[in-house]
Amino acid sequence: MKYNPVTGDVIQALQQITGEKYVKTNPDVLAAYQSDESLAPDMWHLPEVVVAPGSTEEVARIMEVANQYKIPVTPRSAGTSVSCGAVPVCGGIVLLMERMNRILEINEDGMYLVAQAGARTSDIQNAAKARGLMYAGDPCSADSCLIGGNLATNAGGNKAVRYGTTRHQVYAIEVVLPNGKITHLGAPLKKCSTGYCLDQLIIGSEGTLGIITQVTLKLVPLCPYKLDVLAVFTDLAKATALVPKLVKAGLNPTSVEFMDNNFVRRASDYSELRLPHYEDGFYDIISIETFSEAELDAKMDILASICEKAGATDVVEADDRVWKVRRNCLESTRALSKVATSEDLVVPVPKIAECIQTLVAESKKYDFLLFCLAHAGDGNLHFQIMKRDMSDEEWKKQVAAFRDFAYPYVYKLGGRLSGEHGIGYKRMPYLERCADPVELELMKTIKRALDPNDILNPDKVIHIEE
Amino acid sequence: MKYNPVTGDVIQALQQITGEKYVKTNPDVLAAYQSDESLAPDMWHLPEVVVAPGSTEEVARIMEVANQYKIPVTPRSAGTSVSCGAVPVCGGIVLLMERMNRILEINEDGMYLVAQAGARTSDIQNAAKARGLMYAGDPCSADSCLIGGNLATNAGGNKAVRYGTTRHQVYAIEVVLPNGKITHLGAPLKKCSTGYCLDQLIIGSEGTLGIITQVTLKLVPLCPYKLDVLAVFTDLAKATALVPKLVKAGLNPTSVEFMDNNFVRRASDYSELRLPHYEDGFYDIISIETFSEAELDAKMDILASICEKAGATDVVEADDRVWKVRRNCLESTRALSKVATSEDLVVPVPKIAECIQTLVAESKKYDFLLFCLAHAGDGNLHFQIMKRDMSDEEWKKQVAAFRDFAYPYVYKLGGRLSGEHGIGYKRMPYLERCADPVELELMKTIKRALDPNDILNPDKVIHIEE
Repeated sequence: MKYNPVTGDVIQALQQITGEKYVKTNPDVLAAYQSDESLAPDMWHLPEVVVAPGSTEEVARIMEVANQYKIPVTPRSAGTSVSCGAVPVCGGIVLLMERMNRILEINEDGMYLVAQAGARTSDIQNAAKARGLMYAGDPCSADSCLIGGNLATNAGGNKAVRYGTTRHQVYAIEVVLPNGKITHLGAPLKKCSTGYCLDQLIIGSEGTLGIITQVTLKLVPLCPYKLDVLAVFTDLAKATALVPKLVKAGLNPTSVEFMDNNFVRRASDYSELRLPHYEDGFYDIISIETFSEAELDAKMDILASICEKAGATDVVEADDRVWKVRRNCLESTRALSKVATSEDLVVPVPKIAECIQTLVAESKKYDFLLFCLAHAGDGNLHFQIMKRDMSDEEWKKQVAAFRDFAYPYVYKLGGRLSGEHGIGYKRMPYLERCADPVELELMKTIKRALDPNDILNPDKVIHIEE
Repeated sequence: MKYNPVTGDVIQALQQITGEKYVKTNPDVLAAYQSDESLAPDMWHLPEVVVAPGSTEEVARIMEVANQYKIPVTPRSAGTSVSCGAVPVCGGIVLLMERMNRILEINEDGMYLVAQAGARTSDIQNAAKARGLMYAGDPCSADSCLIGGNLATNAGGNKAVRYGTTRHQVYAIEVVLPNGKITHLGAPLKKCSTGYCLDQLIIGSEGTLGIITQVTLKLVPLCPYKLDVLAVFTDLAKATALVPKLVKAGLNPTSVEFMDNNFVRRASDYSELRLPHYEDGFYDIISIETFSEAELDAKMDILASICEKAGATDVVEADDRVWKVRRNCLESTRALSKVATSEDLVVPVPKIAECIQTLVAESKKYDFLLFCLAHAGDGNLHFQIMKRDMSDEEWKKQVAAFRDFAYPYVYKLGGRLSGEHGIGYKRMPYLERCADPVELELMKTIKRALDPNDILNPDKVIHIEE
């Protein structure tokens, strides 16, 4: 056996680090930390102990104990992962980051913010906003997720077209390495060519190469002017071909969101609203932000003209009705099927239409329903796959068969398995199958070098053979 | 001894890979590849053989031979490094990338360009421009340097304030690893959360972790409108405090360049030109690019108003005279001293003034002259240090003493040794002294794991003990 059980000695060692209060073994607490938001109960697993450190030094000492006793450690932010990233699949210790939640500094001249890893993303957004600046990371779960988890999964979200994903918002991190040593990687510098880029290696490694304990985030100027536009297309290829046209015209859209006609109809019914081309429309919702009203007006004129030339049937301001329909998308499918799974595929922007068409055609061979919502601006396609009334066994079989087709196909398009949710435990076996074998071996070489006991979030992203 | 000499067997093995024509051992060729543009003859070193592969497969097979015989390999692009990055300090093989110089694809919808690593940077810029797009990487040596070298050092250059440095322009790379295996890292995706970010680890590792053989670069829309402004200040702190003000106002400057008064006077004399405040001025040259004339006009009004409020004595269009003075900066110092060395320090933007003031004050204790040119927009400070008439021995001693003060001081400000030139061999001993010891050990752990024989560009960035 690779790991040892959590014994009384281990518990005592943990208690000496954090105090008894923050070391929990009661069954209800353990049960609360067996899962995340992945809704995949067959993948959940109970931890043996939950510990909540109050400082970076405590995190470091916990890693020392874990190495000494060979106990796996699963770092956990808010547990909003949908990839079983925070599920302690090998048991052992769940390490809760939520006590380390302070915003430590907002440097207005340097345009950066320093926070502990357990700070809530929305608290960081609000703190920046209060100073007239913006933290541009904006995952949909911003109200509940914690910044350390955002970095660990390189979370995407609503503003990635203009500002990039979470890894692009980071100047520096403080990290506890698997061996329990503390280091500081990166710096609040706009330019640097001083040694290896280790900060970006740790970011997005889903807590397998280090535990991020503190972050230094870039702040950007807040755009005071904003307008959202709904462009309706009756042709999928035209709807998704819009993106490079907007970018090339210098419109610098903050986001370009896409709803397929299944979602348009379902969410409109659910919301009791009728928007243009309910029967056959594909929707693009485009957000533009500017620093002046004149710039906004000018960009809106260009936007309308581009949309019309691109074949849009309607171009209207995206008012509350549009957002209501958009917000109700997932909720509206619940009545169709209580059990569902979602994909987080990402493809090069020019391949979006082809990918949607091919996977929709493939889905017709199965008994499930497949709808598509996309962050079209960055090629990130969320397919909602709904079980309906088939048996559990059949459902598993059909989803697996669909993935066996879809994942290699997406790789062939130059795409990848996850745009913003991460690999976690859920997609780990698929990454092992789809990734370039040399790339995979390189990941494992680095993991083995940094974590020889394979105790930090094991079986996430990659599997290390014993 | 860590390495073996290049024997007849090795030469023969290399000839079998590339053909005899591309394996050179004649003394004049070896002498041509002992140096780069670092002008540090005491650090130069002759290679034993120079080989110019024509394909990625040939690069891979050369690495296999090098591992088999334990011969060090120094990859070389155009040799424009000023940090001895391309100097074969341990002898062995110099691996020339210049034959692999083709631009393979320009994808206008996907907004990316694929090229071999030996393609010239200016050829890539021009190829993009011909399609109405821009490759935003723009080192000063763009006319001579090759793109692989740009990635290896994470080159900075003229547009980094708006677009970031070279690592921010890259979607994907093809790499030959130290063990001779070929892999593809990254993808032309705007979003990705699928495994470790290995592309960014290789980029900026100065050819020590892998040989980049092919690159997929981001293209951005070309701004048709541009204006350069000279803002003159008589107060250093006010001149350098301008940057965050411009950024916060949403001006999104392409570059903000700074000249201290030493350079203003020296380069004006040399150019036989008098610009405002020749006697006591610090110059900021600000470039703004836009997609419309109206936007440019609006931004120019805001820019002028910000500069005036910030204490500028003059705000004028930066015409040919200004650029002539700027271009003549380095040339104008040659008459002061034929021997000079330059620093490439980088500090957080709010620390620029403090750093310049402190290092100028420190420099008064020495017999050399110290002038400062800065990419102020990104905190990258180039100090030109001129020997004048002191002895070689004294010069060495004084520069070393100055660095012993300057480097730890810059780290204390949150800065680093190199903004855009890299560590190479020249600054390697200083990185060993200045970097966080845990960070340094982490770099070495990764280097050892990927290159157990330490044959790929050894003694650059870090030193691996035998």
